[in-house]
Amino acid sequence: MIKVGIIGVGTVGESVAKILKENQDVISARAGKAIEVKCGVVRDINKKRDVDIPLSANVNDVLEDGEIDIVVELMGGVEEAYKVVTKALKNKKAVVTANKALLAYHRYELQTIAKDLPFAYEASVAGGIPIINALRDGLSANHIDSIMGIMNGTCNYMLTKMRDDGVGYDEILKEAQQLGYAEADPTFDVGGFDAAHKLLILASIAYGIDAKPEDILIEGIENITQDDISFAKEFGYEIKLLGIAKKDDTEVELRVHPTLIKKDEMIAKIDGVMNGISVIGDRVGETLYYGPGAGGDATASAVIANIIEIARGGGRSPMLGFNRPMEGKLKLKNTNDVSSRYYLRINVDDKAGVLAKITKHFEENSISIETMLQKPIKDTANLLISTHTAKEKDIQNLIEELSNLAFVKQKPVMIRIV
Amino acid sequence: MIKVGIIGVGTVGESVAKILKENQDVISARAGKAIEVKCGVVRDINKKRDVDIPLSANVNDVLEDGEIDIVVELMGGVEEAYKVVTKALKNKKAVVTANKALLAYHRYELQTIAKDLPFAYEASVAGGIPIINALRDGLSANHIDSIMGIMNGTCNYMLTKMRDDGVGYDEILKEAQQLGYAEADPTFDVGGFDAAHKLLILASIAYGIDAKPEDILIEGIENITQDDISFAKEFGYEIKLLGIAKKDDTEVELRVHPTLIKKDEMIAKIDGVMNGISVIGDRVGETLYYGPGAGGDATASAVIANIIEIARGGGRSPMLGFNRPMEGKLKLKNTNDVSSRYYLRINVDDKAGVLAKITKHFEENSISIETMLQKPIKDTANLLISTHTAKEKDIQNLIEELSNLAFVKQKPVMIRIV
Repeated sequence: MIKVGIIGVGTVGESVAKILKENQDVISARAGKAIEVKCGVVRDINKKRDVDIPLSANVNDVLEDGEIDIVVELMGGVEEAYKVVTKALKNKKAVVTANKALLAYHRYELQTIAKDLPFAYEASVAGGIPIINALRDGLSANHIDSIMGIMNGTCNYMLTKMRDDGVGYDEILKEAQQLGYAEADPTFDVGGFDAAHKLLILASIAYGIDAKPEDILIEGIENITQDDISFAKEFGYEIKLLGIAKKDDTEVELRVHPTLIKKDEMIAKIDGVMNGISVIGDRVGETLYYGPGAGGDATASAVIANIIEIARGGGRSPMLGFNRPMEGKLKLKNTNDVSSRYYLRINVDDKAGVLAKITKHFEENSISIETMLQKPIKDTANLLISTHTAKEKDIQNLIEELSNLAFVKQKPVMIRIV
Repeated sequence: MIKVGIIGVGTVGESVAKILKENQDVISARAGKAIEVKCGVVRDINKKRDVDIPLSANVNDVLEDGEIDIVVELMGGVEEAYKVVTKALKNKKAVVTANKALLAYHRYELQTIAKDLPFAYEASVAGGIPIINALRDGLSANHIDSIMGIMNGTCNYMLTKMRDDGVGYDEILKEAQQLGYAEADPTFDVGGFDAAHKLLILASIAYGIDAKPEDILIEGIENITQDDISFAKEFGYEIKLLGIAKKDDTEVELRVHPTLIKKDEMIAKIDGVMNGISVIGDRVGETLYYGPGAGGDATASAVIANIIEIARGGGRSPMLGFNRPMEGKLKLKNTNDVSSRYYLRINVDDKAGVLAKITKHFEENSISIETMLQKPIKDTANLLISTHTAKEKDIQNLIEELSNLAFVKQKPVMIRIV
C-alpha cells in the first residue's frame, strides 16, 4: 500500500483523487500495490469540494505524517511551493509536482536536494502528454538537435480560431475567456511565459542548460492580426506560438515567440487547444508527441503515472536526465546571435517613394527580401515582407530605424519564420 | 561500466555499436556509467562489417561471459531467438530486444522467465518512437479505450504514393522495393503481419490480452486500387493500414486492415514511411506519437534507450505493464461480433436492374447504405458504396452472396471505415 498526500486540491487535485479511486482496478494491477490518498491539504477547509478524501488546512498533516510515502504538490506558485517540497524531501518523501513555475526557477536546487529520492514532474510540461518520459528516457541515446513545441493550448486555440473564423485578437480572447481557456488576466498564457517555463524544463533534460525565464527571448501573440494570417495563407504557412530550443556545436538557443511554419510540417497541423512537441534527435530523426496540454483529468493522468512509477520502484532516472554534467557543457546563446528568416508587417503612408525608402533600410542592414505583399488599409498600406536568413540584431536594428521614419505609422510587427 | 553483448550484427546492430561509441559523451553522462560493447555475435565471421567491436561466431561468447550485463538480441526469428534470450535470462543477464515476432509469440513466457530481470523491447514497436515507454509508463493511470496505429512504414509509403502520384499498387510496390522500403517478398509488410505483431505487443500492455497473430483479423493492402482512393478523396477520407485495438466493457477487438479514416484526424495526416500511434485513454483523452518506424539508427536509438534505462538502475516496470492481472480480465472479441462502417467496391455488368438487385441484398442483410458512387470501367461499372454501422458477419455474408451473382465480376473489395 502506497499512501499519498496532496497539497492543493483544486481542479487537478480533485481529478487525482477521483481517478485514483475510480480507476483503482487498473492502477493497482499496474502498480502492484494499492494507492490511497491519506490527506489533501486546502487553504479553505470550509469550501465545498467534489472529493472523497480526508482534508486538512495544515500542510504539516501531510509533510510530517510518517505514513505518507509520496507528496503531490499542486498548490502552484514558486517560493511557497519550494519550501513545501523541500520539507517533503527532507522528511524522505518522494515528490510529484505539476508546478512548471517552481521548476522553471528551482529545478537544479531541487535535483540536488532530492538526491536519490524520486522527484517527478511529468504533468508540468504539456499536461497529459508523457513528454518528460519520452525526452529523458525514450530519446536518451541522442544528442538533441532541436525541440519545437506548441506548449500553450490557449494560444493555439486563439490562433486556430483567428485563422478559421477570420476574426480579430480581442474578440477571440473574449471567447477564450468565456470558454475557460484563458484567464481573466491572460498575460501568462498569451505573453508566452507559460510556454517559456515548459521550454526551460525540456531544455534542461535535452541539454543540461540551467536558464531562467528572464534569460531567454519571450514574445507573445498579442500583436497578431488578420493581415499576418492572410500573409501566412498566401505563402503556405501556419502561425503558431512555439517554444524552440536549438543546438549548434557549443550553444543552445531558447526562445518562445509566434512563428510562421510551413503547413506540411506535422507540428503545423496541430490545431485548437491541443499541444504538440517535435523533437529532433541526431540519431532517431524527428519524433512528435501530441495531446491535451491542460485540463484536470489530463494533467492528473500524468501526475498519477508518476505515482505509479514510484510505487513500482522505478523513478531511477536522474531528475533532469543527466547523472553527471557533460564535458564541454553547452552554453545559452545570446539572443542577438540567433539567425532566422523573418516576416515584417510595416504600416506606412500610401505615398510615392515610400517603398524605395523602406527597401533601402533593408539593404543597409544586409537583410535580403524574399517576398512582399502590399495591402491597402484605409489611407495607409500594410507592407507584408518576408526575408531570407538574417541576424536577429540586424532585424532589431532595422525595426528601430523603421519605427523612427515619419511615414511608418507604428512599430513594425515581426514574426520569425521556421 | 556496463558491458553489453550484441547477438546479430546487421543494420541495427551496427548502428547500436556505432552510436554507443559516437554518442558516448551524452550517453555516459545520462546513464552515469560508461557503456561498452564487449562482443558482437555474427553468423559469418568473415563478412566485412562497418563496426569496431570484437566479433565472434559463438553465441556463448556472450551468453556465458560473466562480465556481460546486458544481452542485446537482434538476430530476428522466433524460436532460435527465444532459446537465446531464455539462456541469457537464466544466466542473470538483462535482455534488450527489437524482435517483434519473438514477442508476438512468446511475450508472456518471457515475462515469467525474466521475473525481476529487466527485459526491454522499446525498439520492437514503431522503431524510434518511445511508444512502449508512453503506453506502459506514461499513460498507466488510464483504462485504454483504443489504440489506432500506422505501424508499418512500407504500407504507409505505398498508400501515400498511390494517393499522390495516382499510380497502381504493382508499380508502387516495385518502386518501394527499389528504394529498400519493401522486401523482395513483401508479404510480411503489405499483408499486415508486421503491424499485427506490433499491435499484439501494445494490446498486452494496454489490456493484459494474451493473443497470437493467428487469433486476430489481419488484412493487407494488396487489393487497394485507384478507385478506392478516388472514393476516399471524394468523401474526405484517407486510406491507411491501421492496427486497431478497441475496448468495450468486457472485450477487446484487435484487427489490422486498410481503413478509411476522416482526413482531419491527426493519424490521417501521417504520410510516407513515418509511423504514428494514437492512444485514447479514459482520462487523458487522445495522445499521439509520431516518428520513424524503421531504419538502423532510429531503431538503435530505442535499443540504446533501454540499455541506458537498465544502466541507471531503472527498468522496474513490469515487462508487460501489469504487476498482476486485473480482476474481470478482458477477453478477445470474436471478429464476427465487431461492428463498423464499411466501404464496398463491387464490379458489376453495366446493365439495367443490376443496382436494384444489389441493393436488395444489402437490405436482406440489414445493412443500410450511406453513400454510393458509380464509375464506368470498360463495359462494366464499379459501385462504390459506404454503409452505416453494420455487423462484420452481416457484411461477410453480403460479400459472399454478391460474389455468387452472375453479374458481379469479381469478389467485392471491402474496406472498414473508422
